Amino acid sequence: MNRVAVVGFGSTQFTRSDAPRIDYLLLDAATDLCNNMPSLSRSEIEAVLVSTNDDSKYLASILSELAGISPRVSQSIESMCGSGTSAIVTGVSYIAAGLADTVLVAGADSVDGPGRILDWDVSRGQFAHPVFWASLFTKSYKHKFNIADEELAAVPAKNHRNAAKNPRACSTVKPAIRDVLESRVITGDLRLFDCSRPCTGSSALILASEQMARELTDRPVWITGVGQKTTSAGFTKNRDLTKIDSTIQAGREAFAMASRSPEEVDVVELHDAFSVFEPLALEGLGLAPAGGGARMSASLYENEDNSVNPRGGLIGAGHPLGTTGVAQAGEIFLQIRGNAGKRQVKDASVGIVHNVSAAATSSTVLVMES
Amino acid sequence: MNRVAVVGFGSTQFTRSDAPRIDYLLLDAATDLCNNMPSLSRSEIEAVLVSTNDDSKYLASILSELAGISPRVSQSIESMCGSGTSAIVTGVSYIAAGLADTVLVAGADSVDGPGRILDWDVSRGQFAHPVFWASLFTKSYKHKFNIADEELAAVPAKNHRNAAKNPRACSTVKPAIRDVLESRVITGDLRLFDCSRPCTGSSALILASEQMARELTDRPVWITGVGQKTTSAGFTKNRDLTKIDSTIQAGREAFAMASRSPEEVDVVELHDAFSVFEPLALEGLGLAPAGGGARMSASLYENEDNSVNPRGGLIGAGHPLGTTGVAQAGEIFLQIRGNAGKRQVKDASVGIVHNVSAAATSSTVLVMES
Repeated sequence: MNRVAVVGFGSTQFTRSDAPRIDYLLLDAATDLCNNMPSLSRSEIEAVLVSTNDDSKYLASILSELAGISPRVSQSIESMCGSGTSAIVTGVSYIAAGLADTVLVAGADSVDGPGRILDWDVSRGQFAHPVFWASLFTKSYKHKFNIADEELAAVPAKNHRNAAKNPRACSTVKPAIRDVLESRVITGDLRLFDCSRPCTGSSALILASEQMARELTDRPVWITGVGQKTTSAGFTKNRDLTKIDSTIQAGREAFAMASRSPEEVDVVELHDAFSVFEPLALEGLGLAPAGGGARMSASLYENEDNSVNPRGGLIGAGHPLGTTGVAQAGEIFLQIRGNAGKRQVKDASVGIVHNVSAAATSSTVLVMES
Repeated sequence: MNRVAVVGFGSTQFTRSDAPRIDYLLLDAATDLCNNMPSLSRSEIEAVLVSTNDDSKYLASILSELAGISPRVSQSIESMCGSGTSAIVTGVSYIAAGLADTVLVAGADSVDGPGRILDWDVSRGQFAHPVFWASLFTKSYKHKFNIADEELAAVPAKNHRNAAKNPRACSTVKPAIRDVLESRVITGDLRLFDCSRPCTGSSALILASEQMARELTDRPVWITGVGQKTTSAGFTKNRDLTKIDSTIQAGREAFAMASRSPEEVDVVELHDAFSVFEPLALEGLGLAPAGGGARMSASLYENEDNSVNPRGGLIGAGHPLGTTGVAQAGEIFLQIRGNAGKRQVKDASVGIVHNVSAAATSSTVLVMES
């Protein structure tokens, strides 16, 4: 496969405010990206890929028009919460196939936008909201591995604390473990701080072929591994709620493609839609043993180690669905370049992006490195 | 680029009836495809790409679940009327990049679905419906090249006649030129028969890498050229309404990639959303000289030559937005294999697919050959 790099990143603030227009939201992220990347001429952008759950049509062409780009390829890509990395992998494939050299991937969603509930999955009955499947995962995981509430509560405590160093994060709080445990009851298994929350935000990045990457920057960040897997579309088809099969398979594939092992990973952006998904992802990616993910998160919290979800994860940064995967990859890009400011993870040179959809029925894993 | 082939095709009937469920519509086309392709095991399908304007989320994973497929990649792709070929090119790029060997591309839209009007383009004022921009193209083209009503009327007469040999076509009429000219007035420049009509339908095809194609069939049809271009998203930015710039650029790119010239083309599926777009496409693709496309269509009609839009085009077959590009590529696949039944174009070995979006502000052109 031809080598593909991330060479630039831009983003809006993530907020709980409604976005009156999704096209202007996309434009704001693309404009921030262009401002961060004076070496990039808009005429060099050959493909514009928009990841979103918004119902607007032709958004990639509209963003192109607004941003003064005249691309060959323009299209929207949707796979619910995993739209962002789905669009990134599409961009990688266009470049690897030789169909484009420079690709803009821009994600955007609004706090009140569609895609937050999978109406199709009627097996959930009246329990359609994601908090219900997250509850079942939480109950199963805690029961099987005898996990204490305090350990899981370290996930939001850590990720809100990390978010406090991310000026674009949605979070404005820094709860201690006790605050998490005493926050409002959402279900029998989840408290308010266990939940990521929809928000409004847009992030954009530039992917480039090796030749174009060398022209645009002296510090490209290569996407060396790509793994994807959809195991089902129905939550209730997951037979074992103490692991994420789609993540296990996607992770294995991504590490194999990159010829990397979990031990070599310095920094991770993973899909903590709810507290329990951080340990489940750590275990699925091979970064912690089965049942050991919660202890790992708690230990990271105690040691003030921000190498997992340095931008605050979905819980701290907010979760603007189609934006999330793009923002995650942007964070790993900044970390590996050494441009992550106050939240810089020391000597980060190999990073992982982990993004899932719809009750973790599908996963995408990317390996990125300097 | 690694070679990519179309190796199988399936479709539903195209109808003017509402589709109660888009997921079942997709499943019907995928099932027809699998029935047509006993050599294909569903476990071999590594990517499922859905092209649609429907607002449902996670459709590619849902189709996978319904069809018994467990893919690595699953996502929806939208670019209004050009969604179908956008999804095909995405599938081509996944295979060419080595990220998948076997890709299912399934398009579906319903007669009353979204995507028929580009709300964003406020420059059209109250004239938002496509008939108004088609009117302006028609007026400009006729004026510049002194085209008679009878010549343009040959387009729907020909394409409805072609559709009569396509058992899946929506059309149930076979108007003569006089019938076209006497059909109901839609605008000062368009009559009812000049217009393609939204309909309900789904089509699906299988793309395969060279190795997988050889395993699955002894008659793969190769996609040897891919061209795409978005010139704008706003209709009124088109300065010259007597040609389609996006088609000219996409066509040039596709022919160059395939090392083919327009003279070598045996069969064409082009985007006749309205009568005038057949000559504009023929000219844009270099199949007719500027201003000569209408004469060419009229001549094809007189000579009972069905090599342009053999399945009936959008006017005859119907236009289920996201399905159209997939159905067009499926027709060229059947034609080049010699499987097009009563509508077989003799000795077809090089074919073209031409699919546009949103007042022809973007175009995709594919070259396919045996």
